Amino acid sequence: MALPLCALMSEIKRIPPRSGVAFVLPRGARLKVTDPQGEQVADLVAYNRDDTGEVLSNGRTLDYLSKIYLTAGDPVYSNRSRIMFEIVEDKVGRHDFLLTPCSADTFRIIYGDKNPHRGCFGNLAEALAPYGIGPDRIPTAFNIFMNVPIDSETGVLKVEPPLSRAGDYLVIEAKMDIIVGLTACSAEQSNNYAFKPIDYEITEAD
Amino acid sequence: MALPLCALMSEIKRIPPRSGVAFVLPRGARLKVTDPQGEQVADLVAYNRDDTGEVLSNGRTLDYLSKIYLTAGDPVYSNRSRIMFEIVEDKVGRHDFLLTPCSADTFRIIYGDKNPHRGCFGNLAEALAPYGIGPDRIPTAFNIFMNVPIDSETGVLKVEPPLSRAGDYLVIEAKMDIIVGLTACSAEQSNNYAFKPIDYEITEAD
Repeated sequence: MALPLCALMSEIKRIPPRSGVAFVLPRGARLKVTDPQGEQVADLVAYNRDDTGEVLSNGRTLDYLSKIYLTAGDPVYSNRSRIMFEIVEDKVGRHDFLLTPCSADTFRIIYGDKNPHRGCFGNLAEALAPYGIGPDRIPTAFNIFMNVPIDSETGVLKVEPPLSRAGDYLVIEAKMDIIVGLTACSAEQSNNYAFKPIDYEITEAD
Repeated sequence: MALPLCALMSEIKRIPPRSGVAFVLPRGARLKVTDPQGEQVADLVAYNRDDTGEVLSNGRTLDYLSKIYLTAGDPVYSNRSRIMFEIVEDKVGRHDFLLTPCSADTFRIIYGDKNPHRGCFGNLAEALAPYGIGPDRIPTAFNIFMNVPIDSETGVLKVEPPLSRAGDYLVIEAKMDIIVGLTACSAEQSNNYAFKPIDYEITEAD
């Protein structure tokens, strides 16, 4: 019995610990992001493939959804107020959309590192460079599986271990042709002090 | 008795309801933003005057401060993790740093307006154009006096009337030469359904 073409074409790829990738996700295609070992964050950024001045926007999205925690059924908007992608499946239900990708500065400022890792920010910058996207244009990311509770009285936020367990995943569907940057996050706090890989799989539209 | 030069040079300016301005705030200068009538929001954005690719970043700031509500003593960071300005006085203690400036799209999506106002976004875009800053480069703003409580369980956010009363103010001090965009906010919800002016005053460093 022949499998449908879309199933045959999909392939699970692995992002090694503390690294990142970028790729095009065509309109209608789905991206499944899996935490293969549990408690690992994946930072995701997205740009309009045909005009990279259009980029995902936490401010627009949180405003239009009137909430800070996104899950299945929620659209993610660009800085031009257009829907870039939608979350279509979510096995975890807790992700962050407030914080920027960790960077050498993050490790210097928060952790006091003397020779800091370049972090998700450096990994994204390298992965996005072939698409003509410079580091200044990396926005606040959609941080899949990142667990950032907030005290509603004081506004104090904490970075706690992800709620994701081995094999948990989130699926998005592109609503325009987008360039996606995706990482296996490099920050100690975000991943309960163990760096693990992230798996991803693209399923083209039928 | 002669007044000090800085006092002689300062002048209170008024931003009319639903409009905006942009100006340079030199390093060391202070900007006082006053709500003259109460319950009125002012959206503030900032760019490095010498390289406008550097812009204020809510993601970096919230990460480094580990909180979402800023007040006196808190620095505001750029996308390059440098301190752009610091809040030095705050008579209100509740401001928002999660949401983007209201725009025609905001009014269309949230309010269902058929012929929407251009909002703070359009006002900032016009005010920033002479500095070579295009609309795609308007980030999530620091929304002075905006009151956005969050339910820590669900993540649901509400836009409630500002806590500012007539004459309340916030003062920032520039830590680099910055271009500031500043508005008297145009969104009904944010200002308890009455559009009012915003006053501002620049005091040069001694």
